[in-house]
Amino acid sequence: MIVVLKKGIEESVVNTIAQRVEDMGLKAHVIVGTERTVIAAVGDKRNGEQETLESYPEVEKVVPILAPYKIASLETRQEHTVVETGSLKMGNGHVGVIAGPCSVETEEQILESAVRVKEAGATALRGGAFKPRTSPYSFQGLKEVGLQYLAAARDATGLAIVTEVMTPEHVDLVARYSDVMQIGARNMQNYHLLQAVGEVDKPVLLKRGPAATIDEFLLAAEYILDRGNPNVILCERGIRTFEAHTRFTLPLATVPYLKERTHLPVVIDPSHGTGIASLVKPMSRAAVAAGADGLIIEVHPNPKEAASDAAQTISCEAFAELMVECRKVAEALGYQMGDFVATSSTGSREDCNRVVAEEIN
Amino acid sequence: MIVVLKKGIEESVVNTIAQRVEDMGLKAHVIVGTERTVIAAVGDKRNGEQETLESYPEVEKVVPILAPYKIASLETRQEHTVVETGSLKMGNGHVGVIAGPCSVETEEQILESAVRVKEAGATALRGGAFKPRTSPYSFQGLKEVGLQYLAAARDATGLAIVTEVMTPEHVDLVARYSDVMQIGARNMQNYHLLQAVGEVDKPVLLKRGPAATIDEFLLAAEYILDRGNPNVILCERGIRTFEAHTRFTLPLATVPYLKERTHLPVVIDPSHGTGIASLVKPMSRAAVAAGADGLIIEVHPNPKEAASDAAQTISCEAFAELMVECRKVAEALGYQMGDFVATSSTGSREDCNRVVAEEIN
Amino acid sequence: MIVVLKKGIEESVVNTIAQRVEDMGLKAHVIVGTERTVIAAVGDKRNGEQETLESYPEVEKVVPILAPYKIASLETRQEHTVVETGSLKMGNGHVGVIAGPCSVETEEQILESAVRVKEAGATALRGGAFKPRTSPYSFQGLKEVGLQYLAAARDATGLAIVTEVMTPEHVDLVARYSDVMQIGARNMQNYHLLQAVGEVDKPVLLKRGPAATIDEFLLAAEYILDRGNPNVILCERGIRTFEAHTRFTLPLATVPYLKERTHLPVVIDPSHGTGIASLVKPMSRAAVAAGADGLIIEVHPNPKEAASDAAQTISCEAFAELMVECRKVAEALGYQMGDFVATSSTGSREDCNRVVAEEIN
Amino acid sequence: MIVVLKKGIEESVVNTIAQRVEDMGLKAHVIVGTERTVIAAVGDKRNGEQETLESYPEVEKVVPILAPYKIASLETRQEHTVVETGSLKMGNGHVGVIAGPCSVETEEQILESAVRVKEAGATALRGGAFKPRTSPYSFQGLKEVGLQYLAAARDATGLAIVTEVMTPEHVDLVARYSDVMQIGARNMQNYHLLQAVGEVDKPVLLKRGPAATIDEFLLAAEYILDRGNPNVILCERGIRTFEAHTRFTLPLATVPYLKERTHLPVVIDPSHGTGIASLVKPMSRAAVAAGADGLIIEVHPNPKEAASDAAQTISCEAFAELMVECRKVAEALGYQMGDFVATSSTGSREDCNRVVAEEIN
Repeated sequence: MIVVLKKGIEESVVNTIAQRVEDMGLKAHVIVGTERTVIAAVGDKRNGEQETLESYPEVEKVVPILAPYKIASLETRQEHTVVETGSLKMGNGHVGVIAGPCSVETEEQILESAVRVKEAGATALRGGAFKPRTSPYSFQGLKEVGLQYLAAARDATGLAIVTEVMTPEHVDLVARYSDVMQIGARNMQNYHLLQAVGEVDKPVLLKRGPAATIDEFLLAAEYILDRGNPNVILCERGIRTFEAHTRFTLPLATVPYLKERTHLPVVIDPSHGTGIASLVKPMSRAAVAAGADGLIIEVHPNPKEAASDAAQTISCEAFAELMVECRKVAEALGYQMGDFVATSSTGSREDCNRVVAEEIN
Repeated sequence: MIVVLKKGIEESVVNTIAQRVEDMGLKAHVIVGTERTVIAAVGDKRNGEQETLESYPEVEKVVPILAPYKIASLETRQEHTVVETGSLKMGNGHVGVIAGPCSVETEEQILESAVRVKEAGATALRGGAFKPRTSPYSFQGLKEVGLQYLAAARDATGLAIVTEVMTPEHVDLVARYSDVMQIGARNMQNYHLLQAVGEVDKPVLLKRGPAATIDEFLLAAEYILDRGNPNVILCERGIRTFEAHTRFTLPLATVPYLKERTHLPVVIDPSHGTGIASLVKPMSRAAVAAGADGLIIEVHPNPKEAASDAAQTISCEAFAELMVECRKVAEALGYQMGDFVATSSTGSREDCNRVVAEEIN
Repeated sequence: MIVVLKKGIEESVVNTIAQRVEDMGLKAHVIVGTERTVIAAVGDKRNGEQETLESYPEVEKVVPILAPYKIASLETRQEHTVVETGSLKMGNGHVGVIAGPCSVETEEQILESAVRVKEAGATALRGGAFKPRTSPYSFQGLKEVGLQYLAAARDATGLAIVTEVMTPEHVDLVARYSDVMQIGARNMQNYHLLQAVGEVDKPVLLKRGPAATIDEFLLAAEYILDRGNPNVILCERGIRTFEAHTRFTLPLATVPYLKERTHLPVVIDPSHGTGIASLVKPMSRAAVAAGADGLIIEVHPNPKEAASDAAQTISCEAFAELMVECRKVAEALGYQMGDFVATSSTGSREDCNRVVAEEIN
Repeated sequence: MIVVLKKGIEESVVNTIAQRVEDMGLKAHVIVGTERTVIAAVGDKRNGEQETLESYPEVEKVVPILAPYKIASLETRQEHTVVETGSLKMGNGHVGVIAGPCSVETEEQILESAVRVKEAGATALRGGAFKPRTSPYSFQGLKEVGLQYLAAARDATGLAIVTEVMTPEHVDLVARYSDVMQIGARNMQNYHLLQAVGEVDKPVLLKRGPAATIDEFLLAAEYILDRGNPNVILCERGIRTFEAHTRFTLPLATVPYLKERTHLPVVIDPSHGTGIASLVKPMSRAAVAAGADGLIIEVHPNPKEAASDAAQTISCEAFAELMVECRKVAEALGYQMGDFVATSSTGSREDCNRVVAEEIN
């Protein structure tokens, strides 16, 4: 921590502040410059010292030197984490593909989605049962029934299930039905929720908040890691900027930047990141080329009928094309993309139709 | 809702889309322009039609006409809401002043803060017992003990208590001790929490998320209003922009803009809005001049010792000066500022000292 | 300048970098921390050393300590600059008011505007003759004829003239007709233009670019000051953020923040800063309360007929009301607002009407 | 253009506004909704009508339907423009690669850069002779001497020269020495400069301003096109957002979004777009995968010695690796990358060494 003092601070005051730094258990080095004096505070404390020192009227600013996160840091663990659960494998050269509709709407819809995204090469199925919606008047999801439909889709196809949990009291319920619990962007700093999923033995896909800095993002992951859950997947889904032609601005540089700082896998959500169906394919290719460990994409058998996020949802046909092109990029760069890990009963499209038929009967 | 079609769409396709609009229960007016055809969709639906129409490949964009919020709208209720609870009155010309430390640290600290901000003219006491902190390694608050100290400060001074609630399961607890429940910026879209405070009969101070649009902010309020709680106070506390010299960018135009659209009171938080103690006074004056219904300010008897937010916390003396200047502005413009509403036992500084002494014994 | 090294750098490499710092003519202090080593580089150089050091693979980041601007700094000149030209006085407690239409359209329009804003208390007249327009198909201004109309308005009313100059080759022309040359936000980093107005003996009103940091803004002023022109007025006119409900986000904290760092006067443009006529009055009041040295406001005798910026232009009547309210705020806080400095022939509305009549005949 | 009226506007007022729309030469369709009345204004005018209508107190908002640019639009010209000059070919599947140092420093430096980037596969040489620098105290470039060195590098290698022009009076000079004139991000809305390069018969590489919307970007291009110069290359180089860990935020979605709207080629600048040398390679790969028509990259034989932009400049070795990886991506997707077009005398490294030797002697 570097404490920069204002101009013209007397030596006695400098010494008082240096003493205060020592009182915090840190070592203070005073450096007298031509225009400014700075105090370098050395030591391993990360708890409020910066804010306290910034409140001194004689202090111009305090510059932290150490990153505020620990367990998430690549300095703590040099080996890249690979998250593997059911059919999904992500990290260290394995590019996982999570695809499916924004919302679970009916059992047929989610089963058809599962079968078709699996055919195209997806390695996990997404679908929202609890839906965080900006307006209280919008469709809020099927809740537990939706989770049951997702579990049925897993039974039919073998695809791991990724679905959102919105509040601590639902964590056990969602964990029971899913393979990966998703924390949505709006809840990135819902600390009680982060702690609750940190207690559970299931991987967590943590979405970056649209106004979160990278440090805030990694500290949110740290809340989960700190509770003992090591399987956190970081998801960049776009940030809020002045750009209004896309729903959010998708900063792909997050991928290589994070990979220099953390061992956790990083996935890209080009659907929310752009909000426009026609941009999903090129941005998926770009994400793979940037080194992402995975993609999470909104796909619906009939996007026009989607109960939510229709404008950014692509069809199953468009998803199949996307997979073909992304695989070309992955192969060119030596990544393993969409390697389906068979650890449970798998199914084909025919199985799915049969299941649907049985359900209807 | 205006549906703008792409160039060169055939008449038969236009008619199909118009039919689809009618199927949604809306009336479709087709307007053929020189370069584009648009369809005006008339009717009172607000649930996903826009997204669905945007997903059509023939549709360039869909422009909503109606605001998405209803109960919060000035069109629904033309009379400005005045929130009044204990000593605090806000709205329609009454400028309330909520002051106190970021965190409740000790009983002495919160009692001294209460007495001194009351002396200076505050009409409510703020103080965090449950603290949402970016890092899991930062001070997380005294929790229920902190609430008890706040209640003691109310007993001693008569000041209404404003304190944050972070998760649905704490709502009853926080409601029991406080007069106004605060929803922090990080939780503005924590919908389960919004619904939970909507069920309680206590006013709610809702902070704008740092990346929330005004529509999203009002829809978050709508979640609370929709559950039957009419006393929502909107709080602008700064947005995240490229500006790094202040902690956030404080957009005071939010005040008059909101007042043209909603009947709810609007307060300004210049402490978080700037993050710099020396800017709090001028921005408080500016907030009053812009027409704000209240201020919420971080004040500590000894800012250098504050357990959190030290850099933006002002001293009790600085707060007293701030009140003098803000009152001049309020009087010049005909506002009632800091009118303390005596509805409960009030106390003086002597009382407080006595209480503190008793606690210590 | 603090050079933060990456973790685990060997001592010999540290020494090499320290030597390199010394080669730059700076003094290097090596501080060995528990996790990191930093080098404090002391000395008065401000030219590229930071970027060079950042390019070292062993360097994590470089943190500058000194502000990059010099002449603009309050450390260089402790006395606040008062810019005074003709009827306009700004700075150190004097609040100047520049008002008038976005564009000069006709001689009658600019004369009527001048007379009426003067009646209401303006101390300078604004009006664009050279107009920077986003689209090449929009009205581009009357050019030199517009400047002649402005000069006629000054002759008739005594108001100082503020008008924009867009390119170096027009500087002499604009300087001949005007009292204050305006550099628009789009040209804040048009360095040849900044240098050109720096050579002229007329005050310059420099608008902040919508994406400029405060340091960049002050460095743009430094380009002008460095050429010998000391009379630079800084104008905050709003920044580009994710907010779309206003044209720009108007960060009033710029006013007190700048006043802690520079001696130059700071004015606020609430017209561009909001883009909405109904918000101009409350934001003008707020600007005065925040301590601004002036306002620049778009006023038109008939806003609906304005050739540009109609949506944010207020009527002469609305401007008169605005002045009444702003003066109340200024008086409450001890500022001198709108003190007209008579240094040239002044005129009344009757004079103006006569002039208009003569022109028409 | 859709004119949305406020709630409760009387029919007679609606008719008056509709008449006003007709007076503008547009056709007015009045649509009476359940809560609002809107007027659809049909016709081909694009000049201020929107702002005028927005200024009406009865008008809530005005929504434009047509894009404001014409010549740049894909609707005007369906065929994608290929810019070809000397060794450089960009657009419609041809990915050009412009590489070289930020600043021209010495003849040896620019010659060595040229030879080495050509060896690695670059098809044009960049280098700044006139440098727009944030601070007046930074290196401002070698000016005409720098242009002469660039021309010598072209003679030696056959590479087309891309270099910045900063002010209208230098346009002829820069055009004389270069193959592509670059307009920097700070000058994107320097309209006199845009018009000046529009008069010249050389391609223009136009950088997006860091706060420019896509419409503003295309309208800046329109200023050039409108003067008769059809060869405009659009360059995305990052926007200013709240992200501070990178120099700018690089929104690669600009590429596919622009390609749906304009026929002009789009290139990416990953050097300024990230500001961090280690991120340049992955973001270059991503740019190619997103469909960019070219890259512009800062390369220096010795980045640590670079006179400007050292932190984001990569070495010649790193550039060679980058080219290998980008070509793999390009091939996988069927793009032609770095096809050198021999239209002038070309040279090899040996030639360059000879030239350098001759210069030194």
